[in-house]
Amino acid sequence: MLKRSEWRTIRDWAWDFIQKAGFQVKEKEFKSISVADLGLNEFELTGLTILTLFETEWIGAKILIMKPNQFFPQHKHPPLDNGNFPGKTEVIRGYWGNFYLFVPGIKTLAPQVNPPPHRRKHIDVWHEIKVSPGDQYIISPNTWHWFQAGSQGAIVWSISSRVTDIEDQFRDPDVIRKTVIVDE
Amino acid sequence: MLKRSEWRTIRDWAWDFIQKAGFQVKEKEFKSISVADLGLNEFELTGLTILTLFETEWIGAKILIMKPNQFFPQHKHPPLDNGNFPGKTEVIRGYWGNFYLFVPGIKTLAPQVNPPPHRRKHIDVWHEIKVSPGDQYIISPNTWHWFQAGSQGAIVWSISSRVTDIEDQFRDPDVIRKTVIVDE
Repeated sequence: MLKRSEWRTIRDWAWDFIQKAGFQVKEKEFKSISVADLGLNEFELTGLTILTLFETEWIGAKILIMKPNQFFPQHKHPPLDNGNFPGKTEVIRGYWGNFYLFVPGIKTLAPQVNPPPHRRKHIDVWHEIKVSPGDQYIISPNTWHWFQAGSQGAIVWSISSRVTDIEDQFRDPDVIRKTVIVDE
Repeated sequence: MLKRSEWRTIRDWAWDFIQKAGFQVKEKEFKSISVADLGLNEFELTGLTILTLFETEWIGAKILIMKPNQFFPQHKHPPLDNGNFPGKTEVIRGYWGNFYLFVPGIKTLAPQVNPPPHRRKHIDVWHEIKVSPGDQYIISPNTWHWFQAGSQGAIVWSISSRVTDIEDQFRDPDVIRKTVIVDE
């Protein structure tokens, strides 16, 4: 859970960060920022801030905003509607800083990032893809992946088919996808 | 049709334009530029240059690059697959310059742009939406629309569900969607 004051601080930081990075937003988009702390109470280590640009029945676009070295745990977007929808396809395109995406494939022996040690046991895909500004990677539906920002933090586009965040499957049983904000 | 030399000149102009506007591209994306002259042989007046960032079975993203005052005729993205696919949903997000989108709705009495006079008879939606950098508009499937760049040209994102350009329906019977490039 997040205290409301923490949530406000994170939201203000993210809004400032994307604008300093030159990303064009309209004032009304401020309210479209959400914070995922995953119920882990270690947001600086593990979590994600999201600016949702739009979501329709068919497509969505978000900006993922990450603190320096922030980690987001291994998960996948499963098939839905009795298999008529294969799961969310997600395209990551780098905008600012370095973003390290890990997917199934040959294990990267010396990855550029280090996930929090107590979260490593819930990781089993170790093929590293470095996403710098202008780089792009297509994550197929129902494919395990996790990611971590470089030491300066990172901002990336996430453009996808129908957004189904609440259906995401995480390998770490401690993760709760829905953020709970508590008044102090 | 376009002469190969004209096509090359347009492609080089577009590549230069997006980079000067600060859009981050990788060298390998140069080959993803396409030119739509719509078979009209008046590209400076009517046409579009497209940088396709990606296309999957479910989603696509393109950058639309337009010459000053360039016009793109009225069209829609029809339902496909016996109605199981409602037609392409397209989200326009402004990146550089002013882009004027026209959709069904209350007629704008003093639009900011003027389509080429000989093409006006094939326009019957006149509700103007100004898309400046950071502005965004969702075009529903199967909805008539046309657009025109402002006097400085324009660069916008077009993020969509499955790309079905070749199925586009144009109101102007002179339009041929597939570009033919001829060697001189």
